[in-house]
Amino acid sequence: MSKTGVWIVGARGNVATTAIVGARAIAHGEADTTGMVTAREPCSRLDLPSVERLIFGGHDIRRTSVLETARTLSENGIPSRETVDAVREDLEAVDERIEVGTAVNCGNAVTDLADETLREPSVEDVVEQIRSDYRSFARENDLDRIVVVNAASSEPPLSNPERYDTLSAFEGAMADDDSDLPASSLYAYAALVDGRPYVNFTPSTGSALGGLVELADKNGVPHMGRDAKTGETLVKSALAPMFASRNLRVRSWEGHNILGNADGEVLEDEENEAGKLETKGGVLEGILDGDFHNRVRIDYAPPLADWKTAWDDIRFDGFLGTRMKMQFTWEGSDSALAAPLVLDLVRLVAFADERGESGLQPQLASFFKQPLGVDEHDLSLQFDRLREYANSHTGE
Amino acid sequence: MSKTGVWIVGARGNVATTAIVGARAIAHGEADTTGMVTAREPCSRLDLPSVERLIFGGHDIRRTSVLETARTLSENGIPSRETVDAVREDLEAVDERIEVGTAVNCGNAVTDLADETLREPSVEDVVEQIRSDYRSFARENDLDRIVVVNAASSEPPLSNPERYDTLSAFEGAMADDDSDLPASSLYAYAALVDGRPYVNFTPSTGSALGGLVELADKNGVPHMGRDAKTGETLVKSALAPMFASRNLRVRSWEGHNILGNADGEVLEDEENEAGKLETKGGVLEGILDGDFHNRVRIDYAPPLADWKTAWDDIRFDGFLGTRMKMQFTWEGSDSALAAPLVLDLVRLVAFADERGESGLQPQLASFFKQPLGVDEHDLSLQFDRLREYANSHTGE
Amino acid sequence: MSKTGVWIVGARGNVATTAIVGARAIAHGEADTTGMVTAREPCSRLDLPSVERLIFGGHDIRRTSVLETARTLSENGIPSRETVDAVREDLEAVDERIEVGTAVNCGNAVTDLADETLREPSVEDVVEQIRSDYRSFARENDLDRIVVVNAASSEPPLSNPERYDTLSAFEGAMADDDSDLPASSLYAYAALVDGRPYVNFTPSTGSALGGLVELADKNGVPHMGRDAKTGETLVKSALAPMFASRNLRVRSWEGHNILGNADGEVLEDEENEAGKLETKGGVLEGILDGDFHNRVRIDYAPPLADWKTAWDDIRFDGFLGTRMKMQFTWEGSDSALAAPLVLDLVRLVAFADERGESGLQPQLASFFKQPLGVDEHDLSLQFDRLREYANSHTGE
Amino acid sequence: MSKTGVWIVGARGNVATTAIVGARAIAHGEADTTGMVTAREPCSRLDLPSVERLIFGGHDIRRTSVLETARTLSENGIPSRETVDAVREDLEAVDERIEVGTAVNCGNAVTDLADETLREPSVEDVVEQIRSDYRSFARENDLDRIVVVNAASSEPPLSNPERYDTLSAFEGAMADDDSDLPASSLYAYAALVDGRPYVNFTPSTGSALGGLVELADKNGVPHMGRDAKTGETLVKSALAPMFASRNLRVRSWEGHNILGNADGEVLEDEENEAGKLETKGGVLEGILDGDFHNRVRIDYAPPLADWKTAWDDIRFDGFLGTRMKMQFTWEGSDSALAAPLVLDLVRLVAFADERGESGLQPQLASFFKQPLGVDEHDLSLQFDRLREYANSHTGE
Repeated sequence: MSKTGVWIVGARGNVATTAIVGARAIAHGEADTTGMVTAREPCSRLDLPSVERLIFGGHDIRRTSVLETARTLSENGIPSRETVDAVREDLEAVDERIEVGTAVNCGNAVTDLADETLREPSVEDVVEQIRSDYRSFARENDLDRIVVVNAASSEPPLSNPERYDTLSAFEGAMADDDSDLPASSLYAYAALVDGRPYVNFTPSTGSALGGLVELADKNGVPHMGRDAKTGETLVKSALAPMFASRNLRVRSWEGHNILGNADGEVLEDEENEAGKLETKGGVLEGILDGDFHNRVRIDYAPPLADWKTAWDDIRFDGFLGTRMKMQFTWEGSDSALAAPLVLDLVRLVAFADERGESGLQPQLASFFKQPLGVDEHDLSLQFDRLREYANSHTGE
Repeated sequence: MSKTGVWIVGARGNVATTAIVGARAIAHGEADTTGMVTAREPCSRLDLPSVERLIFGGHDIRRTSVLETARTLSENGIPSRETVDAVREDLEAVDERIEVGTAVNCGNAVTDLADETLREPSVEDVVEQIRSDYRSFARENDLDRIVVVNAASSEPPLSNPERYDTLSAFEGAMADDDSDLPASSLYAYAALVDGRPYVNFTPSTGSALGGLVELADKNGVPHMGRDAKTGETLVKSALAPMFASRNLRVRSWEGHNILGNADGEVLEDEENEAGKLETKGGVLEGILDGDFHNRVRIDYAPPLADWKTAWDDIRFDGFLGTRMKMQFTWEGSDSALAAPLVLDLVRLVAFADERGESGLQPQLASFFKQPLGVDEHDLSLQFDRLREYANSHTGE
Repeated sequence: MSKTGVWIVGARGNVATTAIVGARAIAHGEADTTGMVTAREPCSRLDLPSVERLIFGGHDIRRTSVLETARTLSENGIPSRETVDAVREDLEAVDERIEVGTAVNCGNAVTDLADETLREPSVEDVVEQIRSDYRSFARENDLDRIVVVNAASSEPPLSNPERYDTLSAFEGAMADDDSDLPASSLYAYAALVDGRPYVNFTPSTGSALGGLVELADKNGVPHMGRDAKTGETLVKSALAPMFASRNLRVRSWEGHNILGNADGEVLEDEENEAGKLETKGGVLEGILDGDFHNRVRIDYAPPLADWKTAWDDIRFDGFLGTRMKMQFTWEGSDSALAAPLVLDLVRLVAFADERGESGLQPQLASFFKQPLGVDEHDLSLQFDRLREYANSHTGE
Repeated sequence: MSKTGVWIVGARGNVATTAIVGARAIAHGEADTTGMVTAREPCSRLDLPSVERLIFGGHDIRRTSVLETARTLSENGIPSRETVDAVREDLEAVDERIEVGTAVNCGNAVTDLADETLREPSVEDVVEQIRSDYRSFARENDLDRIVVVNAASSEPPLSNPERYDTLSAFEGAMADDDSDLPASSLYAYAALVDGRPYVNFTPSTGSALGGLVELADKNGVPHMGRDAKTGETLVKSALAPMFASRNLRVRSWEGHNILGNADGEVLEDEENEAGKLETKGGVLEGILDGDFHNRVRIDYAPPLADWKTAWDDIRFDGFLGTRMKMQFTWEGSDSALAAPLVLDLVRLVAFADERGESGLQPQLASFFKQPLGVDEHDLSLQFDRLREYANSHTGE
């Protein structure tokens, strides 16, 4: 297959760094593909771009290098020091391909983390600079295709997103230097307008605006999002259908997450947390009938570092009004759960692009908390759709 | 629809009693249908026999009446005292329709519970008596159809079940008064030979023998089993596909169940526990790839009474060898979880029988830990099959 | 022993109602004394006022009767309907002895619950009315002694409590009609000024002000507080000493409480929650060395009704920097845990008063989250102090 | 203070190795003393032998070196590879001081692990060889004192231990070459007979026999045991007093442990597990009143390696018969929890020996599941005894 570049917005963050370290470690035979959906049936039958040959670059607003991020992560064990050592030169090379990004409308919690941001005078200039960065990356690395992935910290939710429901409204806002346009959507626009596939790994707005969906359709380019489903919400989408199909009436589902990384720090800011909670809450509403108490807490607990522990308490009624209960804890490394999905999505979106499959990609619904254009939240049924997609491409 | 009788083997046990109390409470408007799969989409669209009109009878080896069992259960809250009072007369009427059963090859733990058992001189005589009991129940209650449900305590596993792989082998063994033939299979034979649908709600052998599958096919009668999926295993079948589809490598799955009812007491007996563990363990093996440590413990803790608490500890590896973990507790009333499924299965099997759909019923796989004739253990996909079945019958 | 009256501020609340129901159920032989500290060694050796002979009255700002509260509670099982029926007349009699209270400075969340409050023109008038209510209760019921117990909803914390550090400052503030004086301290003043023992069961200020401590000493009256230790904090005070004594370094202790009763509703209000969190957090700080992340969340989840579930996640370092973890869930009925302690404290404080033991009562430290005048938070050592107290009174 | 040697039976096992690595890492400034009771108040005020100057030797029946054990352990993170590298030479030196031990009556599970064992013809010869090994260690390393610590795998319980209730009975049995005498007691005898302090860190018999208690008293030598309290049982001894002091009636306490190290493998053997469960169960019986269901399970789950997870489910009744519940998980590294206690006990027993404090050492009760000669199981009260001991030695 053709040569694929991966442009990650937030390239020096934990998720991006872990994805890059992982891909390079696989290339060097220092890691296996556990955790990658595309490495097993049914996707392994597809002719996807190889992980080993992916070229990475991206935007960031911090100066901490990818290597430094990797070393900080390895203090908590993932990736191991040996792995980081084995890919050190590769990471240094990636750092050469990281440009200064924008943090417009990302909220104070994000801005506080920034070492530098794009200083262009207008929204249109910012977008031009981003397009130019994408273009240079593709040209300098002789790439057939680049997939842009948003893996930056969560933005505060955008109010009245319907005002950007058409492409002309969106472009009009750009022309008017509309100060409400969020960074994630500018990155998305800059990709789609030049026919570059786009994946929104975060709860930020990205390509979810009507105007950008229109742009993707018009330009025949695949895109998908929103907010990768990696931990607690993944479990919810596996468990909630059980309650629904058995007609067990959920009365409350209380989730409490504690985590200790920069993501947790940003989410301490209520403004940014709001965006996250919005996408997390919807999964249950989409699966379960009736009214129930549904709360998600995200608390920052520094000693946990890059680990996240979710505790969920589920009360449900059964036959004859019996009150029953399920509780679970999920303890994972956020980055280790998310990173392989970045690689999966890049491979699958590149594959779709190669075949001219444009617009939203419903076969990828299982990857997202809020799959654009898909109402189904049952993980198995979402995954079944991916299986059918793979089968249809391999003649089964 | 026609008039349906429900003949429960183990009619005075907790599951049967709760099912009967529940059906009668629904009939009197004292309970709703929460927990019944057939009371919601998609099955609610089918023309199933109404719960209110089901007539109950059965076999048992204890003299404790259904009413007494209900009252003992209500000491732990389910069903409530008010509910038991509301259906008291109905329960007394059911007791009149309960006959003495057999406990042949049910293990000492079961035999120790027996107040009386069938004293027929030979296996063939036992079977004749059972057929006669079924026949009298149908005739005296003017029933168009009876569904036989095995809800008795777990038998020890049968060794070399393949010796009964054909109908002639099975009938030959009966003729030879083969003392290894388990009670559950005699009840099943007695049903199927006269064209009566049969459901095996337990891990016992029941209709799983090749000879009985042949008999059902020959006589055009529907049957299904094995071991209703009500608690921990239900959760496993919802969760394990998540690990599989995400290519997360499960390294150990340790389950520990504590429960306090008679079922728990019988399972204290290692012989009987073996049968249970066999069906419980298989679900994970059927969903997850690779080797992993898989243990299920069932311990008897009298203070829990009819409640069961499962604690599961799952270790899995993710990307870059990250070791992660999930733990859950599930706290439910065994009987309240199982009872509505008895009613569901009766309704769905009667429906199939009415339409001449004979043999194993794969659309019912989601109800069982070891669904006969079905390899799929993913709960959502199993349930999807039920949805398709319902759709095919309602023209959708 | 002499005849003892119990005047509960918040007499129609869950804790008071459960205490009253329990005392009367014990009197009628309908309940045993499980959960009462004074019913077992070492306190059972003391000549305490009998539970059966306690006379109850109190203040409240709601019109819902004690009987109605009891019935609402019994919908969740505690107390049982049978128990409520058995003490119905007693509860009606108690209701006759409940007067309208004040809610001054209790915060909006409490004021919103009020059906009526004292309408006296000035703080001094309010206090006079309260004293008069106490006096009438004692006289009309021919009581030798009354113990006033604050069991009302939590007030917001008082700012700069040191301004009331002397009795003259406190009385000066009353004379100036100081609008910051919290209701709980007015009730306490009204008790202590007339030599009536006082117990503060809540995190509110109560008798914790320097001026009231001075008053109690001057008048030779026993009093104690603050915030009964019933659930999660009780467990903390049992567990944290284990980490300390083993030199295991706690790095974070995250507590998450969900509950569904009116208490939970009041604590949804951040102002009122602040008071609660202040007393809850201090226990760990008082036991563990070094810095650690210490957070307590209290969330309102209506389906839990009067039940509270706490989930705590504790990370600690051991030898060679090993990172380890403990997690627990605690699921209890708040009222059933608190109510017997109300009876215990009344009995023990009446006992002290009878013997002329005035001022703060350190032997009661084990009952409180923030035991006034005591630094020891280790539950076993606190309880050991009660044992020594009992021994000293029984000559052992 | 004088020069102290530590002779560990099972010197190449996980606990011994971790203790040795830790002591040497502290000596090299590569680790701190977190987890050591003697490193904090009150014991830090005592003039104990310094950790840095302890000299290690011991017996074992495996040929795997201490360094190899340390490296295997470090694959699971504890100790870290860096730490092992830093003390490599020290570990090699310790290995030179390890002699072949005996495994008589240790059960098949232990014998199966043995590479070589003492081949002396009689019990008396075995004992002579052990004494000679102790003597050589002391002489060659110029030690003022050696403390013998049993840290070998659990033996099966000894039947009728009362037959060795006197020293003459024990010595008579040795003379008769009694084949029931367990290895742990031979090691203990060999220590005590020559005035060497002895600590039994395991559930094995060790010095618990009446004859050996007599010997220790006669020879004026301190000794203590039995079974170090490191994890689940430690928590029990902290929590159970809470239920007792609050008069909450525990109805069942179910404990389930999963672990993956050699200790777990040995405990898979029911014979050896029996010894362990005996000491674990007693703690609750010693603290809680009344009857309750008390079960402890220990299961081997290889993927957990040296980590142990305990899950405990506690049901208790409160006021008005309210049924409540607590559950906890405890996840620790067995070796990291146990190892510092080895160092603590050596230091404290050496201190006692220096001061001529002979016989059982009740101030050390907090370290043991079954503290010899002490009935108190409440952790805080046990620890209080250690505090008083320290105070009495520092004039406070």
